[in-house]
Amino acid sequence: MPKPEAVAVIGTGLIGGSIGLALRASGYRVFGFEPNEEARKVALERGCFDEAASLEECAKAEVVFVCVPPSLIASSLDELAKHKKANTILTDVGSVKAGAVEWLAQSQDPQFVPGHPMAGHEKSGPKFASAWMFRGARWILTPEKVTSKDAIKAVEELIKEMGATPVRLDAAKHDHAVAILSHLPHALAAVLVQMAGDLDSTEASGGSWRDLTRVGGVSPDLWTQIMTSNRVEVSKVLKEFQSKLHELESALEANDEKAIRQFFEEAVRAKEKHA
Amino acid sequence: MPKPEAVAVIGTGLIGGSIGLALRASGYRVFGFEPNEEARKVALERGCFDEAASLEECAKAEVVFVCVPPSLIASSLDELAKHKKANTILTDVGSVKAGAVEWLAQSQDPQFVPGHPMAGHEKSGPKFASAWMFRGARWILTPEKVTSKDAIKAVEELIKEMGATPVRLDAAKHDHAVAILSHLPHALAAVLVQMAGDLDSTEASGGSWRDLTRVGGVSPDLWTQIMTSNRVEVSKVLKEFQSKLHELESALEANDEKAIRQFFEEAVRAKEKHA
Repeated sequence: MPKPEAVAVIGTGLIGGSIGLALRASGYRVFGFEPNEEARKVALERGCFDEAASLEECAKAEVVFVCVPPSLIASSLDELAKHKKANTILTDVGSVKAGAVEWLAQSQDPQFVPGHPMAGHEKSGPKFASAWMFRGARWILTPEKVTSKDAIKAVEELIKEMGATPVRLDAAKHDHAVAILSHLPHALAAVLVQMAGDLDSTEASGGSWRDLTRVGGVSPDLWTQIMTSNRVEVSKVLKEFQSKLHELESALEANDEKAIRQFFEEAVRAKEKHA
Repeated sequence: MPKPEAVAVIGTGLIGGSIGLALRASGYRVFGFEPNEEARKVALERGCFDEAASLEECAKAEVVFVCVPPSLIASSLDELAKHKKANTILTDVGSVKAGAVEWLAQSQDPQFVPGHPMAGHEKSGPKFASAWMFRGARWILTPEKVTSKDAIKAVEELIKEMGATPVRLDAAKHDHAVAILSHLPHALAAVLVQMAGDLDSTEASGGSWRDLTRVGGVSPDLWTQIMTSNRVEVSKVLKEFQSKLHELESALEANDEKAIRQFFEEAVRAKEKHA
């Protein structure tokens, strides 16, 4: 299929802004829709898109990236579906795929490719967007049977142009995996910083503290939405985590050195498995 | 007081080896005692000390850094105390200070300064030692009333020469703080990697996973000793952590968005406090 000439980004925050920067750097013409005036101004100044456009105009682009907060993805897709051309490809960047797959089940739109770039950081907004955001990162796609193979390939080509590696995954497997690999770490980091709240200082901290708390102050708005949209998987995972932590606590209370050692040995084995 | 001419390092692994490298770079003559032949060879090749020496010989240096595993600190201090000169200064680098302070209470040695450099990483052994290990790091000292002011100052001077910042703390406060700031993060990282053990792949992982699991495969030998030596504080902290995690789990199960948002807002406030 021919290379798209124009792409559009709905929501030009950290992720949408970075997609715009990366695709413009690859020579694409990028239209941007951003309802927040201040964010739109910053995104334009930083070159996140060539031209501000209405959602209706954006719907006419060849590929549209939906980069709105999780709670607005379904309604944005509804709105785009009303105005788009038959061959316009839609793709989203939501961290949880259940909602996108549900939208796909209802719309049966073969031109919608649910996606999730494994990139981002603890700061938000177009101010921190970067053309390099996705370099070396994986970008998960969770197409369903109804999804057009050509639409998947077109999105994968754009992902590669941004320096990322497309990976196809089953949506349910994705949501379970990110509960462990992303949502759990963010919950742990939040509790960790909460626990330091009562300390006079963090002078007795080193590299492990710095690393484990980096994402400890992320946006409450965004993360309430992410956690809520994956709440069944995340609560399961939180329960299992507490139970494993309780095992260590019991071993420490019993001064059971053998059990404590086994706890750390199991971690070494698990880390080697995915090394 | 005059600058010491010769210092000694007992145990030339990651930390001891780095102390040797850093002090040699500042022009000190460093004697090294390392009972493990292979580790001694590597440490000598890497320039961690000028000369291998017996523990008795090391005890005659002006300042002796005790860098042995936590379970061997007290017996090493006993042995050094037998052979040292009256003005020889002893200092250790153990991550938990209760044991060192107990040794001090028994020996009443004014020349012993308990210490804990807030540096290190997930690899161990002299192969990974570096003269730069302590640059920009804090180095906690937990002297007691009996400790000589001159001995503290002498150790602080050496710490500064290694590029670190000496910080005086009460030993009990230190042990409580490191339970939260270091031992807890290491326990969390271990459980995290354990939980990924059942996943087919970690393809859906990003920066938060990489950061939170960096210290997830640390030495079971060393960490069993560290956890055991601070087991009362660590179990308390693990209990509190589970309880806070359980709050989030309950909020998710009840789909209580307000409570989930409050959880993340509390983290933002706590992070700002120590920013």
